[in-house]
Amino acid sequence: MATVCISGTLADKLHACAEAGFDGVEIFEPDLLAAPESPEEIAALAGRLGLSLDLYQPMRDVEGVDEEIFASVLRRAEAKFRLMNRLGIDLVLCCSNVATATVDDDDVSADQLRRLGDLAAGYGIRIAFEALAWGRFVDDYRRAWRIVELADHPAVGVCLDSFHILSRGHDPAAISGIPGEKIFFVQLADAPRLSMDVLSWSRHHRLFPGEGDFDLTDFTARIVDAGYTGPWSLEVFNDTFRQTDARRTARHARRSLRWLEDAVSRAMPDAPAELQMLPDSAAPSAVDFVEVKAEDTSAIEELLGQLGFTPRGRHRTKPVTLWTASDARVVLNEQHARGWEPRLAAIGLEVDDAEAVDLRMRELGVPRAYRRTYATEERLDGAIAPDGTEVYWAQAADEGDPAWVQEFEHGEPELPTEITGVDHVSLSQPWDAVEEATLFYTAGFALRVDSSTDVPGPQGLVASRVLVAAGGGVRLPLNVAPPILAAERAGVALPQHVAFVCADVRAVARAARERGFAPLEMPANYYDDIAARFALSEAEVDELRELHLGYDQDAAGEYLHFYTRTIGEVFFEFVQRIDAYAGFGAGTAPVRLTAQGRR
Amino acid sequence: MATVCISGTLADKLHACAEAGFDGVEIFEPDLLAAPESPEEIAALAGRLGLSLDLYQPMRDVEGVDEEIFASVLRRAEAKFRLMNRLGIDLVLCCSNVATATVDDDDVSADQLRRLGDLAAGYGIRIAFEALAWGRFVDDYRRAWRIVELADHPAVGVCLDSFHILSRGHDPAAISGIPGEKIFFVQLADAPRLSMDVLSWSRHHRLFPGEGDFDLTDFTARIVDAGYTGPWSLEVFNDTFRQTDARRTARHARRSLRWLEDAVSRAMPDAPAELQMLPDSAAPSAVDFVEVKAEDTSAIEELLGQLGFTPRGRHRTKPVTLWTASDARVVLNEQHARGWEPRLAAIGLEVDDAEAVDLRMRELGVPRAYRRTYATEERLDGAIAPDGTEVYWAQAADEGDPAWVQEFEHGEPELPTEITGVDHVSLSQPWDAVEEATLFYTAGFALRVDSSTDVPGPQGLVASRVLVAAGGGVRLPLNVAPPILAAERAGVALPQHVAFVCADVRAVARAARERGFAPLEMPANYYDDIAARFALSEAEVDELRELHLGYDQDAAGEYLHFYTRTIGEVFFEFVQRIDAYAGFGAGTAPVRLTAQGRR
Repeated sequence: MATVCISGTLADKLHACAEAGFDGVEIFEPDLLAAPESPEEIAALAGRLGLSLDLYQPMRDVEGVDEEIFASVLRRAEAKFRLMNRLGIDLVLCCSNVATATVDDDDVSADQLRRLGDLAAGYGIRIAFEALAWGRFVDDYRRAWRIVELADHPAVGVCLDSFHILSRGHDPAAISGIPGEKIFFVQLADAPRLSMDVLSWSRHHRLFPGEGDFDLTDFTARIVDAGYTGPWSLEVFNDTFRQTDARRTARHARRSLRWLEDAVSRAMPDAPAELQMLPDSAAPSAVDFVEVKAEDTSAIEELLGQLGFTPRGRHRTKPVTLWTASDARVVLNEQHARGWEPRLAAIGLEVDDAEAVDLRMRELGVPRAYRRTYATEERLDGAIAPDGTEVYWAQAADEGDPAWVQEFEHGEPELPTEITGVDHVSLSQPWDAVEEATLFYTAGFALRVDSSTDVPGPQGLVASRVLVAAGGGVRLPLNVAPPILAAERAGVALPQHVAFVCADVRAVARAARERGFAPLEMPANYYDDIAARFALSEAEVDELRELHLGYDQDAAGEYLHFYTRTIGEVFFEFVQRIDAYAGFGAGTAPVRLTAQGRR
Repeated sequence: MATVCISGTLADKLHACAEAGFDGVEIFEPDLLAAPESPEEIAALAGRLGLSLDLYQPMRDVEGVDEEIFASVLRRAEAKFRLMNRLGIDLVLCCSNVATATVDDDDVSADQLRRLGDLAAGYGIRIAFEALAWGRFVDDYRRAWRIVELADHPAVGVCLDSFHILSRGHDPAAISGIPGEKIFFVQLADAPRLSMDVLSWSRHHRLFPGEGDFDLTDFTARIVDAGYTGPWSLEVFNDTFRQTDARRTARHARRSLRWLEDAVSRAMPDAPAELQMLPDSAAPSAVDFVEVKAEDTSAIEELLGQLGFTPRGRHRTKPVTLWTASDARVVLNEQHARGWEPRLAAIGLEVDDAEAVDLRMRELGVPRAYRRTYATEERLDGAIAPDGTEVYWAQAADEGDPAWVQEFEHGEPELPTEITGVDHVSLSQPWDAVEEATLFYTAGFALRVDSSTDVPGPQGLVASRVLVAAGGGVRLPLNVAPPILAAERAGVALPQHVAFVCADVRAVARAARERGFAPLEMPANYYDDIAARFALSEAEVDELRELHLGYDQDAAGEYLHFYTRTIGEVFFEFVQRIDAYAGFGAGTAPVRLTAQGRR
């Protein structure tokens, strides 16, 4: 781990990296300069913590310069080499020149690196030369390697950084042409594909492996293949990770490396034995249950009753009730809920191999959720997602209700219903947790990022990222509220919601209305627009208007849906997908946000 | 004002625009769709508020399509024209096609616009065609105008949007070739120069005029010159302005238009009479005073005494004391300060024409600061900056102390000192106020944005924007804390500071130490780095280390400086600029942030 990735003082960072299980760190120079500890004290602290100090970085603008400037490079380098001796670090990162280069000549750069290598060798130090994506002349790892080859010095090798190579779209195939022992260091960072200048992209938007759009599995496998045996280090400049709690971010970072190790070992036909796969696990097939927790869940009970759910009784040992409608199961939990307004506290996922998920979560170092269960009850295995939601997993039942349903007593037999299950669960994320949440669901549960969009609301843009399971049985939109809302509200900044899928959403809406249900009201202007945009008959639009149904189309189908009012921090949506409609009614969401603002 | 610029429901937005003094608004369609009011009710509300409804927007993807799709365009358009009749709006914005265009042919687009114009005319409606910067085929205002010329229809003209033109670097000179009466509408937005895809830039990063890097003065003057007499409307998509209080943001927006009116009227040799200049005012020449407010200012008094300031006595009517060192004047205010930790509450600026500044501030609608002054005392004119700091202005004294200094009694005669005045005042800004603050200082005081930088601290990046007065007598770095710090701290997220300029900063540091002063301690590693980076003698570096002085160089000179510890929310810096050094010791700031974190 590069110390620049996380927050705090250098000592804080070392503690955080050690606690998260890193083997070693790169010391980012500004972290050392600001530290009150001497280099010897830092080295001693790292030693006590069991961390190796693998790299000192960065040394800038060392080659491609005229001889006068090169003399000052050597002077500066020698002072840093002495410092590295005090730290006990024997490898330094030298970046390709961005500021002072005036000579665009591989031979000159090679000659200067060779002389720098001579100086370094006198201090027992080696130099890892890296092409920055925005280097003045050297901005391609292939050229950096050519210069290192020309330098032909045992103390001079290359550093390969995934960001600098993949951001420029450079083909990583040439990595196979570099002997493993000349790759002195490897830095890993993922990133979203952004269309912006590469320097800003690099300095602010890097992500941990598995969280962005780069093919880090392929990149890393190529380096393993080339015979590299040194450290795999994260160097992730990210505005958010620089701020968040260092211990938490270090654990998050470590998890990303574990994910990458798994992915690389799966991708390589003969991966080295030290690369360990995670246990196999298919994506979850469905949402087993959702749990709403509150001191008093009666308002939710009334709503579920109106919507056609059946009360299936009370848990035999806990103040918990179950309501179901086919495969839609809602658990209402009043345990340890003093002062809680209704909110979504947990979800359960049906998986093909609960034991494998359990092992994956352990390997990934995810914090575990714990619920007291008694000897004769079904076991509940779960983890705590970064937003605090507890996510449980259980083996999918072959048919019928899952076994845990039997623990609920004195319920009614299920009424017939057009509701068939859970379509999606929208979770409101703290702004600083969404990347960690993405990795939690992708690495832990094999979900994948399906789409990202901004939904305009009356208080700003809501950034929404949808995670889906292969097969579509689980869909989780993760929503990040505009900062001003997050600052105003103590709990979740946006209400969470569960969308239930219906065979006939109109029938569900009509039947609910007969039972006294009042939906979230959609404005008349919204229906005028639907009439203008879509080729629907007047009668069809009138029916939508009457039932307060939202409507959307995409190339593959149609979407009909309505919302309940919000109770506490949670509301429900009822949806019907016609043909292969893939979205979530994005056109309706802004209208819904405004309507919710009026409550 | 386009309603999309600000937060809230459509009714909120209309109220905010009316209160801020706008004459009219553009109705952004999604705002209407989400509104519970009918179009007639919206029209009536606008009427009551004295707002004209000048434009309905946007209608997308209307031209460059095949005939089958065009039939559905006409159907959709007719529904919208009926809606516009209900709203009483007679102008609609049609954007160049981004999604459905398949025909790259000016004649086809012109023909379709002509037929759309025929339909519109039947409803008393006109069409303003706009080239979006990311239009599929039409992405240049010159091509949009060519198509409108070809359409040759009285109900079809162009809309010119500064963002779409200037973001692409298109030369605005061709505006002079468009007859004023064919320019149906003008949308104004500024933006910072960013290197990113133009769609993201447009959707998230627009700014109000005067806050970005576009030459809106020239752009607007060209349109005035062309004979345009319609509304000047702001269309500013900005993630922050969408969130902030609508009333405040609308006033901020209105202020930007007033600034632009002034700039255009100054730029045009024969500007139309309705364009009014603001009163002339040169940039302030110096900081007159800084005020620290606290329930108990004694810790600040002790510090100032150690640093060589002289107590100049107590104000004759208020619990306020004055400390000075040459032209550095620090007012310590204990009035109405119950519970206040020391913080920077006000600054005073010396201006060439106090009356002109006063009139400018009134014209700009800036909230005024008020201090009770008695009949025989100097008047205090001031405004409240967006971060809450009170900024006063006073006529610069010809020589010697300003007149208000005489109101302080029982003081001591000033001691000799190497401190000569105020170098800069760093103000911590809420994240949502920095653009408004920029306009406050540039439009109100004729400061200009000098530079922007990110300073890495142990809790994340501090975004710093430096405002300076021509002549350099006033320098105000505005600092925005990382969100996590802002969320943790109730008051200012980062301590504010005042930097005093010294003829000999070493002498100030030594004399202070003899009086018991303890500076903020800089770590030894910092000095090792200075020794490595700069060609200083060992003795010079030892002296820096001994006095805890920071050191920096740029191409023009050197910078020597030291910091006090933080008291409450404020600290002081003492600086010496050698030759023409222009910066603020950016290399030292991260070390300082870490050292402050250790307090």
